[in-house]
Formats: sequence, structure tokens, C-alpha cells
Amino acid sequence: MPDRRLDVLAIGNAIVDVIADADDPFLAAHGMHKGAMQLIDEGQATRLYAAMGPGREESGGSAANTVAGLASLGLNAGFIGQIADDQLGTIFTHDIRSLGVEFGTEPRNGIGATGRCLILVTSDAQRTMNTFLGAAQMLDAGAVDPVHVRQAAILYLEGYLWDPEGPRAAMYKAMDAAREAGTKVAFTLSDSFVVERHRADLLRLLDERRIDILFANQVEAEALAQVPDVESAVTALKEKVETLVVTRHEHGALAIRGGERADVPAEPIRDLVDTTGAGDLFAAGFLAGEAHGLGLERSLRLGAICAAEVIQHYGARPEANLRALAGDLLT
Amino acid sequence: MPDRRLDVLAIGNAIVDVIADADDPFLAAHGMHKGAMQLIDEGQATRLYAAMGPGREESGGSAANTVAGLASLGLNAGFIGQIADDQLGTIFTHDIRSLGVEFGTEPRNGIGATGRCLILVTSDAQRTMNTFLGAAQMLDAGAVDPVHVRQAAILYLEGYLWDPEGPRAAMYKAMDAAREAGTKVAFTLSDSFVVERHRADLLRLLDERRIDILFANQVEAEALAQVPDVESAVTALKEKVETLVVTRHEHGALAIRGGERADVPAEPIRDLVDTTGAGDLFAAGFLAGEAHGLGLERSLRLGAICAAEVIQHYGARPEANLRALAGDLLT
Repeated sequence: MPDRRLDVLAIGNAIVDVIADADDPFLAAHGMHKGAMQLIDEGQATRLYAAMGPGREESGGSAANTVAGLASLGLNAGFIGQIADDQLGTIFTHDIRSLGVEFGTEPRNGIGATGRCLILVTSDAQRTMNTFLGAAQMLDAGAVDPVHVRQAAILYLEGYLWDPEGPRAAMYKAMDAAREAGTKVAFTLSDSFVVERHRADLLRLLDERRIDILFANQVEAEALAQVPDVESAVTALKEKVETLVVTRHEHGALAIRGGERADVPAEPIRDLVDTTGAGDLFAAGFLAGEAHGLGLERSLRLGAICAAEVIQHYGARPEANLRALAGDLLT
Repeated sequence: MPDRRLDVLAIGNAIVDVIADADDPFLAAHGMHKGAMQLIDEGQATRLYAAMGPGREESGGSAANTVAGLASLGLNAGFIGQIADDQLGTIFTHDIRSLGVEFGTEPRNGIGATGRCLILVTSDAQRTMNTFLGAAQMLDAGAVDPVHVRQAAILYLEGYLWDPEGPRAAMYKAMDAAREAGTKVAFTLSDSFVVERHRADLLRLLDERRIDILFANQVEAEALAQVPDVESAVTALKEKVETLVVTRHEHGALAIRGGERADVPAEPIRDLVDTTGAGDLFAAGFLAGEAHGLGLERSLRLGAICAAEVIQHYGARPEANLRALAGDLLT
């Protein structure tokens, strides 16, 4: 039995968020679809940045937000992602390490600047994301050490990173190491555009039983199964993966494993401010529950608690101590 | 009569804030005095950054925060301050320009990185600041164009910048241009350490009638006058300057001009979160009132409104539209 030093090792985009308020006409004028994520190149990023209002910078990246949540819940987490040797890379490194997350991917030069996500938050608390991946997409298989993967109980993979070739190779390498070591593989679909571009690939991963825990929101699940409603998606996907977790925004979330199914409502909130990071923090809570062997329902509840915290303030990293918010669930 | 294209032209530190939560033992362990500002060098900045928690980055700088407030109040403002040609410099430039502030100081290389202020916020909403000035202290007289100064109704100078030699020369040059052009000179003492280090210099500026509007908080006023209470400080200083403004935190503020004196209470607030920027935004409101010819009492009230906004959220730049908050005061 390998030494599981880490509860979760995640591979994802190493990104700094730039958060600004915007209104609907601004989104329309720049051809954005509210609530979506789109990839932009450096030129587009420069033009959009020049047009948007003053920003707040905070470390982000979907799986990186998840490990930040895991650390706040008291778990041992590691992160693999590519930064450049620049000031934004320094910020990303500081923020994730200061939470106690193990982050050792060496910064590299000559691969563009550290990635950033220009996030426009509208007064309805929706976030519209424009991601310049920069160095993040230059992650390659060399950044993954099979020994490292073996030390983790769960390997968590960010679907956003399935798009560029190098990171995909890195994730295949990590999945192979996980399979050999008995490390569970969790995968988040991240966005429906990932599903649309890689549906065959993703279904093959499921058919090959390379994924043990699949995270999807309702839209992503429906897109993957190519069905028009969430229950049909659940029916189609539940046989393909050991544990299926589907989040449904304000309608709560559900999980299915074998013959068991659990549904939980969303946690009540006081002020909805910025939904950025809701899915990332839900995953953190659920994975923490899994790591503690809480069972589906309590793991879902922990996910809902973590998601509720992060949507009540700007930014996708938790501000409160999630371990404290978890209360009895984690004692 | 010169064309006063700008209501206010400010000279100050071009700095990005790095804001993190901390507790009293952390401040003590790192030898900080709660509520104060201290200058640190690059090595100290690196060590402190490594020790502190995850940060939020937001443009800062005392006078830069003030012009951000002026822009939010609908005034025409310009800013002079030194950044390096790096990512933090890009962030500073973007944020201030996106508010409509004129900022044309060329970034320079080979003078160190763009300055940053490591701000630790404790649960009592006090901010303790550790400033690595970096490029900001390399501002020199070449950055000041007398023609530019002449276009402003008010020249606003940040006392923090009186400390390093180059910026002091830049401020002397600007004051000379202001005197020739009939531009009013406003000066903020910034911090009692500035007063302690430059008391003779500052008193000489007042005696030479180079300053028309002096901003001080209670502690700075007492330090400058070397008296133990605010009323004695007011008595000692009021003859030395056309307009004296003294802020007193939760006790409100007062202003004296000639035979006239006004006192206002602090504005009521709902949640005290982070006092960073309170004095900077108070100055913005007061200067906007002056620019609109509101008179002492209403200018003080506008200052109090702006200060109340900024202390109810993290960060030293306004988040709300101050013009809207000002309501009838500015119609």
C-alpha cells in the first residue's frame, strides 16, 4: 500500500484572475456570452483589459481554487500547473503555497507570460470569463512525476486543460500512474465548450474506466450525454463512472454511486456577490467528504457549504475558514 | 488666466497593494506596529510576503487613491508617479487610466520593480502597511512638466514621497510652477514618521507659504506642532496655512480657513472592514468640495462620505460610484 501523503493532487491551469465589474451592454459590445468562459489570445487580452474597468487581482484557476478549498478544509493537497517566471507567477506561487498546498512546478521562461483570466462580474453576480492561458497551456508531461501521483489518494484533473495538447499528455501520464497505484481519478468537465470539442475523447476515457469520479454541472452533463434534461443525462452517465456528481446551481446537487443516489439543496446564502469558483469549491467540499469517507449525502452537503461561501464575495478562493464552516460534518 | 483643464494634479507613490488578513500575533512576530506604515526594502518585502497569507492585489498609493476618488466624483484629475516596466506597473497604469485619470509618467527600467505595499488587515479592520517603494522612489524632477502643473486648479502632494530625494525635488519643482501659475498647493502629511523625519522642512514649507491646504490626521497634526492634543495643534497650525483640514477617525473632521471653522462627525457605517484609504478618500471628497466651491462644512461632509465608503470593503480604491453617494452635495 503506497504512502498516501496527499489527500488530493490536482493538475490544472495556473492562472491569476483579474476581476472587474461590468454591465450587460459591455458584455454585448465585446461579443461575450454571459456566464460562459472563452479562451482569448494575448492580443485579445490586451484589448479587453484596456477596455474594462479597474481590476482586483487574485489567484485563480479552477483546480487551483479547488485545492485552495481543500487546504482550508484541513486536507493535504498538491498542485501541478505551469507559470512563467514573472510577477503574476510569483503571486500565484505565493498564494497557493501560503495555504499549505504543495506546489513545485518550476516556472519556465520563453513560453509567454503567466496566464490570466479577465472576469467581468455583472450586478446579477454572474461571472463571464475571458482566459488568456499563456504559460498555463505549456504544461507538459515532464511536470508530472509518477512517484508524486502515487502519493495521492485522489488525482483531480481540470477539464479546461484537456484542450491544449501538452497538458493533455501530462494528464494521460498522471492517469496511467494513478491506475497503477490505485489512486482514484476525479475529473471535472469544467465547461460545455470542453465537452463540445472533446466529447468522443471524454466518452472514451469513461468507457476505458480511467475516471472514477466525474464532476459536471447540469449543462455539461446534458452536453456530454447529448440529452435535453438532467435526469436523462444522469441515467446515461451513471453506468459509465463509479461516482457521478452533478451540480445544479441554485437547485442543489446530486451524486450517484452504484445503486445509491443522494440529492441535496443549495445552502441558503445572505448576499449573492460573484459566482466565480462555485463549482471549484463544490468539488473541494465533495472531495474532502470522500477523503474522510463521509458518504455521498454528507459529501454533497460539504460541497454545498463551500460553494455557498465563495459566491458571497468577489474572487474564487475561500475567504472564511472552511474547516470551521464545515462544523460537525468534519469532526 | 491659465486654462485649468484639470481640477487636481497629484504627485504620489505609484504602488500596488497586496492585501491579506492577519492576526495580532503575526504583527507582533514581525515587529509591526498596528495601524502604522513602515518602509521596507526588497529583501524584507520578500521575507514578509513569504510569511503572510494569500493576497488580493489592487492598485493603491495614497495620492493615487485620492485621484481615483476624485474621478469617481466626476472631477478631472491627473497623476504623476513612477512605475517600472513590469506586470505590476501595467496593473497600476490600467487601473488608474480606466477611471479616466490622466497618467502619463513613462515606466522606466533599471530602477527596480514597481512598488508594492503589503497590507495586513486585522479583524478589527485596522490596516498595517509595509511599503516597498521600488520604482516609486525613483521619480525625479524630469517627470514634472511646469506646463502640466499650470493646467491644474489644485496640485496635491503626498507626504510619503517627501522622504526620498528625487521625488522631493520633483515636488519642489511642481510647487514652484504652481506658485507662478496661481495653482493651489495641497499637501498631506501622510504619516507621523514623515513628520518626525522632516519636521523642520515641513514647517519651513508652511512658513514660506508654499502650502495652501494642509491635510493631517490628529496624530500627524500633534506631531507637527509638537503638542499633546488636537486643539492645541489646530491653534498652532491654523495661522501657518490658508486652509487646515484635520481628520479624527471616528470622531469626524474639522477644517479652518481664516476666521471660519467647521466640524463634522464621521458618517455612519454598516460594516467596518478595512480602514485602508480612509484618509486618501477623505481628501478626495474635501478637494472635490473645494473644486466645486462648496465651502468648508459641505466639503468636509463630502470627505466623510467618501471615507465611509472605502472603509466598508477591502482595498483603498472606491467600489461604489462616489458621485451618486454625494447626492445633493454635488448637484
